[in-house]
Amino acid sequence: MIPTIEWVAGRIRIIDQTRLPEAEIYLELDQLDDLCEAIFTLQVRGAPAIGIAGAYGVALLARQAADQPDPAGYLRETAARLRAVRPTAVNLAWAVDRVLAVCADLIGSNADRAAEAALAEAKAIHEQDLAFSRAMGQAGARLLGQGAKILTHCNAGGLATGGLGTALAIPITAAEMGKAPEVFASETRPLLQGARLTAWELGRAGIKTTVLADGARAWLMETVGVDFVITGADRVAANGDAANKIGTLGAAILAERHHVPFYIVAPSSSFDMKLPSGREIPVEMRPEEEIKYLGDKQLAPESAIGWNPAFDVTPYELITGWITEHGILQPPFGEIISN
Amino acid sequence: MIPTIEWVAGRIRIIDQTRLPEAEIYLELDQLDDLCEAIFTLQVRGAPAIGIAGAYGVALLARQAADQPDPAGYLRETAARLRAVRPTAVNLAWAVDRVLAVCADLIGSNADRAAEAALAEAKAIHEQDLAFSRAMGQAGARLLGQGAKILTHCNAGGLATGGLGTALAIPITAAEMGKAPEVFASETRPLLQGARLTAWELGRAGIKTTVLADGARAWLMETVGVDFVITGADRVAANGDAANKIGTLGAAILAERHHVPFYIVAPSSSFDMKLPSGREIPVEMRPEEEIKYLGDKQLAPESAIGWNPAFDVTPYELITGWITEHGILQPPFGEIISN
Repeated sequence: MIPTIEWVAGRIRIIDQTRLPEAEIYLELDQLDDLCEAIFTLQVRGAPAIGIAGAYGVALLARQAADQPDPAGYLRETAARLRAVRPTAVNLAWAVDRVLAVCADLIGSNADRAAEAALAEAKAIHEQDLAFSRAMGQAGARLLGQGAKILTHCNAGGLATGGLGTALAIPITAAEMGKAPEVFASETRPLLQGARLTAWELGRAGIKTTVLADGARAWLMETVGVDFVITGADRVAANGDAANKIGTLGAAILAERHHVPFYIVAPSSSFDMKLPSGREIPVEMRPEEEIKYLGDKQLAPESAIGWNPAFDVTPYELITGWITEHGILQPPFGEIISN
Repeated sequence: MIPTIEWVAGRIRIIDQTRLPEAEIYLELDQLDDLCEAIFTLQVRGAPAIGIAGAYGVALLARQAADQPDPAGYLRETAARLRAVRPTAVNLAWAVDRVLAVCADLIGSNADRAAEAALAEAKAIHEQDLAFSRAMGQAGARLLGQGAKILTHCNAGGLATGGLGTALAIPITAAEMGKAPEVFASETRPLLQGARLTAWELGRAGIKTTVLADGARAWLMETVGVDFVITGADRVAANGDAANKIGTLGAAILAERHHVPFYIVAPSSSFDMKLPSGREIPVEMRPEEEIKYLGDKQLAPESAIGWNPAFDVTPYELITGWITEHGILQPPFGEIISN
């Protein structure tokens, strides 16, 4: 398991994802400002991981509220600040509110019990994330034969969640079963989460991992061969269309041509049943500098435009199955998922 | 036209391609060691461009041979050194030998006339390259409608040739016709020739150019729309299968799904009629460091393997047409091309 985030002796311990893979640096946070900074600067990233960070953050604030003249006011104000650090990730607000719900009323009358309840709820959120990851890992790992070759894209691993991941839970679980899977991680330009984070996580788990340029995926399928393409998803519409990191749609099209099954792995909380199809999923456009520069290094001339969508949408007909904590689903999901 | 390589007052003037797009630096070479170094370190790159550099190199050597005690021996030995700098690119050896053929016998008896003949032959090779580029540009530009959107990969432009290019000759010619084409350049990991070189060349030509991650091509076709995919080729087999920079096969597969015509642009000298199909084309594997590092920056952990094929092979059935100096061909090419 990846030590993405842990509660250690009254502090939130995170691994600094901006320093990977060059350095493995842990931060221990017990001040609100430091936690907000860590979330804002992507030292902790990935919607489920940010939710867990927010949950532990409220537990921290509930402990500190006891020493304040107005504990309830302090908790309310600081939690609101924490909730607003990254407004896009719905998990952060959801987790902050869920922990507040068990401690906000109690904090004025019994600060110690309120702090205990907050920490218990944060740990429950973290535990639930891990339990869902384990269920998805097991459902997916059962599909894999011995030595299966898996191509994945971006990072849908422990670093993006509470420690085990969505798509990456599958090779990790298969490895525990003795199936010796092999993973090919496309590097995932522009931010290189495949090369930087996925390869680091899988190396740590002792899984043979090969990094390749995103453009090399077709030739990999053609010459080396791939048994499964497996990725996470940021949002799944009611018809099964799935938004995920830019480059996922291409992988799905190449998989279809090479008759390779393509699976999406996501907990039911990532399904948005209010959206009939992927056409309604908003796709974030990010700054062109991410394309034209890498750190300080200029890659493209000033005259060029950098086109930088963060996500693409894969249509349901290219997706073989939707692996969730409820097993491997097919649309319509209505009876099992009702978000 | 791109000042890739020029003969200026007895020297070979090249633009240093390793410094683009950050700096536009020209080198004037009149010493064999400096020319060999420039070719070896990719300051001048691209098979046709290297050939032209080798041709002018022999012209340089023929001039310098006159001052040597044994002009013929000097020319023979130095030309052999030049020919061997990059043994893979067949154009270098071919061009060196072609210029030697017009001056080697003459150098002992009339050094001045030999040097003149060598320079005339080098200029003829350069002129022929430009004439072929012009023919390919015109054949391709006729296909394009007003404001056509072209996706290209890697750099098949003036920097890789004598100044006008193969694939990039098409938008440049179309722009001269007033058709206002727009080009999307996939960045072309790992060495980023699309971002660094293609975007620079087209910007210089005043053509609207957008750079995108290689993984973003499918979403570009899906949302923005592309009218043509046009790339160069390093080698074309007798059945039409074409080797080109890694990532080209993926573009061809995406083009087929989105009903976008996919054209290869290459002079007949890039056709290898001895090879029945692309299966016989050897694909160079390059060092894994190109994937795991960018300059000094580490992208992937040490534990990961970097898979780094330089080329892939696109099967003929994904190719709409083969644009050559003879026009737009279809296999079998036997009557027109006989290499």
